Amino acid sequence: MDTEKKTPISTLGEFGLIRHLTESIKLENASSKYGIGDDCAVLEYPDKQVLVTTDLLMEGVHFDLTYVPLKHLGYKAVMVNLSDIYAMNGTPRQITVSLAISKRFGVEDMEELYAGMRLACEAHHVDIVGGDTTSSLTGLAISITAIGDAAKDQVVYRNGAHETDLICVSGNLGAAYMGLQLLEREKNVFMGESDGVQPDFAGKEYLLERQLKPEARRDIISALADAGIRPTAMMDISDGLSSELMHICKQSGTGCRVYEEHIPLDYQTAVMAEEFNMNVSTCALNGGEDYELLFTVPLTDYDKVSKLKDVRLIGHITKPELGCMLITRDGGEMELKAQGWQALTE
Amino acid sequence: MDTEKKTPISTLGEFGLIRHLTESIKLENASSKYGIGDDCAVLEYPDKQVLVTTDLLMEGVHFDLTYVPLKHLGYKAVMVNLSDIYAMNGTPRQITVSLAISKRFGVEDMEELYAGMRLACEAHHVDIVGGDTTSSLTGLAISITAIGDAAKDQVVYRNGAHETDLICVSGNLGAAYMGLQLLEREKNVFMGESDGVQPDFAGKEYLLERQLKPEARRDIISALADAGIRPTAMMDISDGLSSELMHICKQSGTGCRVYEEHIPLDYQTAVMAEEFNMNVSTCALNGGEDYELLFTVPLTDYDKVSKLKDVRLIGHITKPELGCMLITRDGGEMELKAQGWQALTE
Repeated sequence: MDTEKKTPISTLGEFGLIRHLTESIKLENASSKYGIGDDCAVLEYPDKQVLVTTDLLMEGVHFDLTYVPLKHLGYKAVMVNLSDIYAMNGTPRQITVSLAISKRFGVEDMEELYAGMRLACEAHHVDIVGGDTTSSLTGLAISITAIGDAAKDQVVYRNGAHETDLICVSGNLGAAYMGLQLLEREKNVFMGESDGVQPDFAGKEYLLERQLKPEARRDIISALADAGIRPTAMMDISDGLSSELMHICKQSGTGCRVYEEHIPLDYQTAVMAEEFNMNVSTCALNGGEDYELLFTVPLTDYDKVSKLKDVRLIGHITKPELGCMLITRDGGEMELKAQGWQALTE
Repeated sequence: MDTEKKTPISTLGEFGLIRHLTESIKLENASSKYGIGDDCAVLEYPDKQVLVTTDLLMEGVHFDLTYVPLKHLGYKAVMVNLSDIYAMNGTPRQITVSLAISKRFGVEDMEELYAGMRLACEAHHVDIVGGDTTSSLTGLAISITAIGDAAKDQVVYRNGAHETDLICVSGNLGAAYMGLQLLEREKNVFMGESDGVQPDFAGKEYLLERQLKPEARRDIISALADAGIRPTAMMDISDGLSSELMHICKQSGTGCRVYEEHIPLDYQTAVMAEEFNMNVSTCALNGGEDYELLFTVPLTDYDKVSKLKDVRLIGHITKPELGCMLITRDGGEMELKAQGWQALTE
């Protein structure tokens, strides 16, 4: 938030603010029958399964406005929900947005936040169909519900992985976590809590972008459909590869073997890990917020999946009694743990 | 919240807490294909329109835990969302629940909150199909999204009222607001901020119940269907009769005339208003949180609607140029204002 003079939200009131932020919204999807302005939004999905996901972001827990611009926050808040729809092999169609706003925010701040949300929606052809705007005693809370669709036989759950299935991941991992470390360091410098280290983002733009402006992998879902591949299990990587692999294995009743050397890493992530004296594989396994897709395909799809751009084979599904194992670069075996970020900060 | 020893939520963790609270949930509705446990819930609505509504409740703004038990809070948080589905002439089928919880809450507190939510869901045959549980720096935030259905030609919007339509309201108004006043007075006594007034709920139980345990009017929707009445416009009364009447008139492009003497009031509301030295009609018009249904029907439905139990005719729709008018008991005319609670507390 910048410090220029702000228009108090009370000048518009709750209804006025919603109208102001949403009046130029046009509905794009055939399934969006009626948007903002009544007790409910009205949707229609005659031949599809309907996918629903929701989350709640709290200031100070999920985001820090000292280094996250409101427009980026809006963009990311939407994107992480769209990512959940893609992770079921679906197409996002609508979102609803609830905001609780403390007095330190002005109308201009909410315009910024909404601008970011609308940018994300436009990029993915998603309609904003409902919302609730209210006040908060302290800080900002953002709750988004995303709704999407998929043909009845196309929904992919977490529980469909089978022994010998190949484990695939899109993009690369650990960069969003490294971007967060970078921003935290910059904040400490700014706050004067750290000395000697100069804020330096040059050559690290990719890490910041991965943290501040993640992209839900619509392109991967399209590529899978075009290639005629239907994953047996899929989820998006929000809490870290380790944790998500264990979800798939637990829900599918299997084990897995994943090869450290095959985990996709970006060059900047590796450089940054070195700078922070961290193990880059640990960052990739436990960092989270990558919003890449983790999925399994039958062994018979090996040729098809090998040809996909920006998708990497990292291992395979095993019998449950073999556990969830990481094969390290030196050939050792390590049991995967769903440590999440805790493992990195302790 | 009671003060006995609590189990810290950290002993279960986020996933553990969700599992603990939701593991015994069974899905009741045919449209609920898959509930909690994946990236999304999966629903199916082949022949229906899908209704979606959401809201976000913040501690200290929407509820005060010094006098609202968590179980009641959970019940009410669900009920107000179901009310929005009924207000479109629909049937609620699913909800998702997101909670942000500060450290002062324990596992037992969340069990209480969930118990209330489940009670509301069971009473209305609604499935809990998704959720997100996260931490909050201060206080509790609850975001609920409700999903329901209606036959394609049965959805009732706010914008369908026509000149000469009859204006009807279910139940009685102002009691929830009076219940809140009563609880606030009790709190002040408890806090020692007020002396001489003894907390006294005897004979005022109905007011407390209306504030703490509102009931969404499923019965009215059923009665309308049974009587073959399809309202031309409908909404639920959450912000006060005045404000809601103005929404319907504005969106329908009409005016209205409402008769003060016909506004339904409970005896306890009237007694309490006298005790607080307030105008009972002002409470009924602006008090809010009644969660009764306000709807309009064609004049030709007069006979049918007159026979409905617990429904009162309060006026009629007029040409827009006549404005939104209240005809007072002494025959005077007053323009309605959407003042909400502000009018009562200034």
